[in-house]
Amino acid sequence: MSYKYFINALEIAKGIMDNTVFPGDTVIDCTVGNGNDTLYLARLVGLKGKVYGFDIQKKALTLTREKLMSEGLYDRVQLIHDGHENLFEYVDEEIKLGIFNLGYLPGGDHTIVTRSDTTILGIENCLKILSKNGIILIICYTGHVGGLEEKNELEKYFSIVNQKECNVLKFQFINQINNPPVLYGIEKL
Amino acid sequence: MSYKYFINALEIAKGIMDNTVFPGDTVIDCTVGNGNDTLYLARLVGLKGKVYGFDIQKKALTLTREKLMSEGLYDRVQLIHDGHENLFEYVDEEIKLGIFNLGYLPGGDHTIVTRSDTTILGIENCLKILSKNGIILIICYTGHVGGLEEKNELEKYFSIVNQKECNVLKFQFINQINNPPVLYGIEKL
Repeated sequence: MSYKYFINALEIAKGIMDNTVFPGDTVIDCTVGNGNDTLYLARLVGLKGKVYGFDIQKKALTLTREKLMSEGLYDRVQLIHDGHENLFEYVDEEIKLGIFNLGYLPGGDHTIVTRSDTTILGIENCLKILSKNGIILIICYTGHVGGLEEKNELEKYFSIVNQKECNVLKFQFINQINNPPVLYGIEKL
Repeated sequence: MSYKYFINALEIAKGIMDNTVFPGDTVIDCTVGNGNDTLYLARLVGLKGKVYGFDIQKKALTLTREKLMSEGLYDRVQLIHDGHENLFEYVDEEIKLGIFNLGYLPGGDHTIVTRSDTTILGIENCLKILSKNGIILIICYTGHVGGLEEKNELEKYFSIVNQKECNVLKFQFINQINNPPVLYGIEKL
């Protein structure tokens, strides 16, 4: 097996999901978007696992439901038309992983973007129900309007997370010119 | 299998070595130091592989030779009492991986440290003989005198490495207060 550490943030995130999520686990895709991560997680949790998927855009959920159904994976997924800051209204169990793929919906309205204040609320919610050694992944884009501000705000928040409670690891490609996404991984200790 | 992404830079480096170095490979430990990486690599390359180990301090090499002999791994290792900037005087073959564990020798004289100018020469040397998809790992400490300057100089150098030739990925724990080491990984494309 060879891990694709060095391709991009999305591949690193997949490698971490592969090594964290196992059949029967419960996980949350906090930003369903085009559904790729939801689909990936639905495979990993298996028949007895559960994926909660949040998005504020109906278009994202419709698209994702279709993808899941065509792959026969919709049975283990609950799609929720709401923001991740409200996740306690829907989720009341321990989770193994949460993922935030920030920014706008590819192919959608580029002015509808995630914002650091609600993202941080969502992350704090996930941390409260995350299992020991569970992981939260945040993929952060800086190429769109507001993206850099969101990243800076998040980084300010991450830098003061208590290191006795969590490790926060930043993965960044530092020689790429076109604003490659940055990945943050939070492990609960 | 569960990867220990989130413990520290050394564990991440080990995970990457596990997934990059296979029996029969040739690799270089550019900063032998206390010999831990040399030993780790000697196991991975197996009986038919080869590890070159450089250090400017005789004490480091003596200590490492003893460790290797007691583990029956010295047969595949060549220890060289010279700096990595001179590696072409000793190595004339393709390598799969090079590792730089910077700073001072633990338990040795803390004023004898690696310096960014020779470190960069060493990295450039490794890049010239690195195989496609081969990897160079650099573990960088900032807690000692001169450490932060070395890191800043290296980062300046990494940021202009041609992205068509290499990916440079930085791994950093951003919520730890005591200057945790930073890991850089360079993959040759």
